[in-house]
Amino acid sequence: MNRDKFGYDIDPWGSAEVKDYRFLMEKFGIQPFEKFKKLFEDNLYVRRGIIFGHRDFDKIIDAIKKKEKFFMITGLMPSGKFHLGHKMVADQMVFYQKLGAKIFICSADIEAYLMRNMDLEMCRRITAEEYLANYMALGLDLKKINFWFQSNYRVEYYRFRDQLSKKVTLNELRAIYGDISPAKIISVLSQCADILHPQLPELLGPSPSVVPVGPDQDPHIRLTRDLASRFQTEFRLILPAATYHKFMRGLDGGKMSSSKPSSYIALSDKPKEAIQKIMNAITGGRATVSEQRDLGGVPEKCAVYDLYFYHLVEDDKKLVEIYHDCRSGNLICGECKAKCSDLMAKFLDKHQKKLSAAKEKVEEFLEEKNYNEKR
Amino acid sequence: MNRDKFGYDIDPWGSAEVKDYRFLMEKFGIQPFEKFKKLFEDNLYVRRGIIFGHRDFDKIIDAIKKKEKFFMITGLMPSGKFHLGHKMVADQMVFYQKLGAKIFICSADIEAYLMRNMDLEMCRRITAEEYLANYMALGLDLKKINFWFQSNYRVEYYRFRDQLSKKVTLNELRAIYGDISPAKIISVLSQCADILHPQLPELLGPSPSVVPVGPDQDPHIRLTRDLASRFQTEFRLILPAATYHKFMRGLDGGKMSSSKPSSYIALSDKPKEAIQKIMNAITGGRATVSEQRDLGGVPEKCAVYDLYFYHLVEDDKKLVEIYHDCRSGNLICGECKAKCSDLMAKFLDKHQKKLSAAKEKVEEFLEEKNYNEKR
Repeated sequence: MNRDKFGYDIDPWGSAEVKDYRFLMEKFGIQPFEKFKKLFEDNLYVRRGIIFGHRDFDKIIDAIKKKEKFFMITGLMPSGKFHLGHKMVADQMVFYQKLGAKIFICSADIEAYLMRNMDLEMCRRITAEEYLANYMALGLDLKKINFWFQSNYRVEYYRFRDQLSKKVTLNELRAIYGDISPAKIISVLSQCADILHPQLPELLGPSPSVVPVGPDQDPHIRLTRDLASRFQTEFRLILPAATYHKFMRGLDGGKMSSSKPSSYIALSDKPKEAIQKIMNAITGGRATVSEQRDLGGVPEKCAVYDLYFYHLVEDDKKLVEIYHDCRSGNLICGECKAKCSDLMAKFLDKHQKKLSAAKEKVEEFLEEKNYNEKR
Repeated sequence: MNRDKFGYDIDPWGSAEVKDYRFLMEKFGIQPFEKFKKLFEDNLYVRRGIIFGHRDFDKIIDAIKKKEKFFMITGLMPSGKFHLGHKMVADQMVFYQKLGAKIFICSADIEAYLMRNMDLEMCRRITAEEYLANYMALGLDLKKINFWFQSNYRVEYYRFRDQLSKKVTLNELRAIYGDISPAKIISVLSQCADILHPQLPELLGPSPSVVPVGPDQDPHIRLTRDLASRFQTEFRLILPAATYHKFMRGLDGGKMSSSKPSSYIALSDKPKEAIQKIMNAITGGRATVSEQRDLGGVPEKCAVYDLYFYHLVEDDKKLVEIYHDCRSGNLICGECKAKCSDLMAKFLDKHQKKLSAAKEKVEEFLEEKNYNEKR
């Protein structure tokens, strides 16, 4: 099989979820991100093909080149721990902020209330302590972001969201989301408004925008773009661009999921907990050590290798070394897990120092924004 | 047939729409308003049985007796002329305001936008010039009311409205409203929030409330009351009371409808126009004058008699005279229409003087409330 230097198929769809991705690209017109790779070599997610696809990203390149305003918009679901999967999005926020984008971030607390039975006060706490604090610790400048809770925002947002409901049908929503309910409809309309409302005249006006998402979110991106085009006369919205990133697998080999702590490492996990999770993680190792010495391991199947690949080893050369050491049977899982644990503990230690400092700043940030009232 | 002194069946369900009303009472538990009649003899709509039914109105009587706070809440649909049908509700606002109720009035501009294709700027104009100005001219003290546009209100309202969506199903909405859509769902949830949100802790807190409606609105009242009871743990809402009033028939014998100018008299109609409409109105007259002299007319079928009954003749004795003069064949339609035209012209003249003064005040009122920004 023809693989790239990182051990993944040269075809970026070479990993487990490939078929789904290819289907999305062929059927729904997601474009390969390949052609922008050279522009963003410094970005690990771009360089390693983790960001694999896009819609309309040329608009963003254009805005960057012409130094015109553009924005990145994303939402957080305040219902669990901030883990490495979320870090991928946070790193992209920092990336776009440095590129000069305005950053819009929404806490989807209404969606959490409606669809996940969270109370709003709890949502506020999780938003602050888990999400905003980690964003800041990862390098986001909160002073420059536009942040809101779905439950506590400006009236133009609600008005616009209500208006959006005019041009979408139940059947359309059913085709996208399956079983729907009034609460689901409110959640969906809120998401559309989250993405599009920065283009209202009261905010930035019509502007290029990009939403970094996983491929599972594409139906939603399509709906939002459709809605934008249906309101051309009223709002002259520019259809939002999107980028699509692959997902790290969960440490237990399944999906990384907020409801399964063994599947993820949270950025607030104590290093000891994190190491325990790494020790229990699924790998591409063989049944016995001697077999592995003979045949080599399979990094393509390894959750530990994913940790290096997505987060822990920034240096490509070092990553390639690990890859070949595994493939050749030189690096055995026990040793490799110890190495990974070491890197992870160092990362968490350093990060968590920044995190406790960030938590205080976040409280100030929310107080300034008047998000502190009992809600 | 056994009729009351006003020419209607003593049973308040004696008129054309009777069967629907009785059905509502028997099947859905609307109670007769009869027992409160003596308390409000001064109120024409009560005295004449026009307000014929209620739910939970004892709560309001209780609040009045104990001098405890309560509120009346109603909405206006800013999509047409303010006519005599709307006057019935406006008169009730004035009535409740004098009784000490806080008055909450909502301009349902989002509903008008979503369901009637109105633009919001137009809604604002109609709300001001047609509705608020007429309310004021009819005696409402705008300084004391709580007024809002659905499209431009406080965040607690939108948050609460979103929360309501959690405990209602599509099937339930379908059973009540038939064909539904995302826009219809937003409209319905807005109406529920309109009625219930004054009880939020940020506003009055849990308080007795009354919604004066036509019987066609009862399914909506039931839904709102059901929703209130489903949120007891979160909001301790007191189920809203409602009163039910009969509808004047349209001048053309059909339903009075904003989309059919010949069916109503608008309070801004020039007296000349109004007279023309009266001249064309359906009556309970006979085929020929001589037949009518012999048999008498049928005020129960007469739109002109409705004008006296609902609006133009405050004095019961005078109304009874007209009734008997018609019944006996003494009063012929032509003469009666001339008499009605005269009363109507006087009413409109007097009202429209107040109306032009009110229009200016309304602009000040909206400016003070910051409802003047281009929306």
